Amino acid sequence: MIAEEFKQMLGQKSVIRELAEYATERAKQIGYENVFDYSLGNPSVPVPQAFTDKLVSLASSKDSMAVHGYSPSLGITSVREKVAASLSRRFGLDYKKEHIFMTSGAAGALAHALRAVTEKGDEVITFAPFFPEYTPYVHGTGAILKVVPPDTDTLQINFDAFEKMFSEKVTVVLINTPNNPSGVVYSTETIQKLADFLVQKEKEYGHDIYLISDEPYREIVFDHVDAPYTANFYTNTITCYSFSKSLSLPGERIGYVAVNPKCPDAALIINMCGQISRVIGHNCPPSLIQLAVADVIDLTADLSVYETNMNILYDGLTKLGFSCVKPGGTFYIFPKALEEDAIAFCKRALKYDLILVPADSFGCPGYFRMAYCIPTEKVERSLAAFEKLAKDYQ
Amino acid sequence: MIAEEFKQMLGQKSVIRELAEYATERAKQIGYENVFDYSLGNPSVPVPQAFTDKLVSLASSKDSMAVHGYSPSLGITSVREKVAASLSRRFGLDYKKEHIFMTSGAAGALAHALRAVTEKGDEVITFAPFFPEYTPYVHGTGAILKVVPPDTDTLQINFDAFEKMFSEKVTVVLINTPNNPSGVVYSTETIQKLADFLVQKEKEYGHDIYLISDEPYREIVFDHVDAPYTANFYTNTITCYSFSKSLSLPGERIGYVAVNPKCPDAALIINMCGQISRVIGHNCPPSLIQLAVADVIDLTADLSVYETNMNILYDGLTKLGFSCVKPGGTFYIFPKALEEDAIAFCKRALKYDLILVPADSFGCPGYFRMAYCIPTEKVERSLAAFEKLAKDYQ
Repeated sequence: MIAEEFKQMLGQKSVIRELAEYATERAKQIGYENVFDYSLGNPSVPVPQAFTDKLVSLASSKDSMAVHGYSPSLGITSVREKVAASLSRRFGLDYKKEHIFMTSGAAGALAHALRAVTEKGDEVITFAPFFPEYTPYVHGTGAILKVVPPDTDTLQINFDAFEKMFSEKVTVVLINTPNNPSGVVYSTETIQKLADFLVQKEKEYGHDIYLISDEPYREIVFDHVDAPYTANFYTNTITCYSFSKSLSLPGERIGYVAVNPKCPDAALIINMCGQISRVIGHNCPPSLIQLAVADVIDLTADLSVYETNMNILYDGLTKLGFSCVKPGGTFYIFPKALEEDAIAFCKRALKYDLILVPADSFGCPGYFRMAYCIPTEKVERSLAAFEKLAKDYQ
Repeated sequence: MIAEEFKQMLGQKSVIRELAEYATERAKQIGYENVFDYSLGNPSVPVPQAFTDKLVSLASSKDSMAVHGYSPSLGITSVREKVAASLSRRFGLDYKKEHIFMTSGAAGALAHALRAVTEKGDEVITFAPFFPEYTPYVHGTGAILKVVPPDTDTLQINFDAFEKMFSEKVTVVLINTPNNPSGVVYSTETIQKLADFLVQKEKEYGHDIYLISDEPYREIVFDHVDAPYTANFYTNTITCYSFSKSLSLPGERIGYVAVNPKCPDAALIINMCGQISRVIGHNCPPSLIQLAVADVIDLTADLSVYETNMNILYDGLTKLGFSCVKPGGTFYIFPKALEEDAIAFCKRALKYDLILVPADSFGCPGYFRMAYCIPTEKVERSLAAFEKLAKDYQ
């Protein structure tokens, strides 16, 4: 029988996708350069040359079985070792390959991690504004997603609301820092307070609570911003990572799950990820991409343009009267709309060919998201359009 | 909480994996060339040069976003079009991109197809001998897998047993032709009889019954063997394909779901696959590999060695008194063990450094599988070891 669950999902249209489609159509009419498309979080800088070089060298290899053969279900051993060594070097924890599971991007990492540490009926808590795809990932495990309302002053964690929502049923807390859609990086104070709270709750309830830390934007952190590594604060931390943004290759679907080596069930969770893969038919990320990424493990694309764009936008928008927490990383900024209904606001913005995403689906009505992974000159030109938009509200 | 379901799975050791590990260890002692490792279905011929050339050219591209950027969730449009055109050309059905969903290999294709057309409690029927990974794929959907016992004379479908097991609860019949582990290709007569039966049952029960046809070995069919294309016989056919074997790149995880264009819900099922992807965090296969494969869509690696090896083994083994249906394709052969207990038989074979897989986990006790994707000279040398093994039973 046609599975109703997935059929129903087709009815829920994605606002972001609809806007991106509108932008594409509009570009055909007035030219791509005249549409200020801030809808999609698609990295705009090229992959590092060293990655390309490695890819070409692997692809040219005469030993096609070594390059294109099956990967073990947990990932190629040498690749897992390189990921573990890099994390250990950078963050001081003693990661070994036993703590690493290679995945198809952060999406694959999150879906596996969530399945490994939730049972049906468990509660997973996350914090608004949040990445809307968390809903299907959590739903797919049989667990229930609860969203803590935002602290809109800081876009850090709203601890009052969080503590009120917490119950014995919560087995996973899911955070995303640096954050999509807000651009905010959780401070040491935030992470420490969260960790202390979870340690206390683990004791109180007598069961494990896992902190799943979604970190695809880890390498896009701006100058002088404190960006603590979550696993250093909490034993039962499962880090989900993607190379999509750091190396500018979102289409190649490569990332990993890393379980804190201090977590007593670390190796068990990693091995379970291999079994989850069998069930969902995922198997493992492509061998060629695993090998290429492992070779440039500590490199990133030239990510500096994102900070340039952020500064232009932050200065420009605040001058125009927009209220906005300054982003500490990512390529997102998250201003308050100039009217209560952000959907109406973003609709009005289309008049000036500004493609903005209302944040209702991120759990934060009244705000909008801009993905500024677009050319800097276009960011600059867009400010005149924002000026016209702001005038509409005077 | 640690998910018990996946934790329990860790307890079930894979016989194939254990044997492969034994073979690796043994090779360290006596040299790789002296271990006749027939355990793993890992393609042994190089990828086609045209694939490598395309891969290098894509990887060298200056437009890194076009190569490494996000793929739409159903697959890159031009790739889906090329797959559809190739299928239409070869099999005469009118496939369009709307009927194609790009996946991570046949595993991904099967897991998506099964999720799309089963509800909890539905029954999925397959036929022994069968690929053991069907168990987790079906289990993951909440449906129940029922296995029809084999017709060991022909290794075609045992229709008597099938018809007895069939009930209103069956919504999917899952076949694999050319077959892993038997090497047998279902004949036109078999497919036609199956299709006729399903048409009759759809009428009788008043609901759709989907035929999921798992075809990763479609391009490995030996001379003069009749290899009908399943979808040409039955409207509600969902074809699951992988390029792993045809292009010798199992590690690159690339395949597709193709729904028969005549199936009334074809486009719906494909769109639902995109939603299933969101839930399991799969997203889509790597952009680079999608693009490269699409460019060589009608090519295969040089697969002729498999037929050479098959003939040597078939002749050699039957001369030694083994009973065996002659394979029509794949790189597997499926003889009867020389004692009732195939596990004991395969254990004894290790004495002669023959790594054979007992077929108990394929639903066919008393038989064993050999994957002859190994060098021909090794196949030839292995016959002396088989001779010694056979003598043990005289």
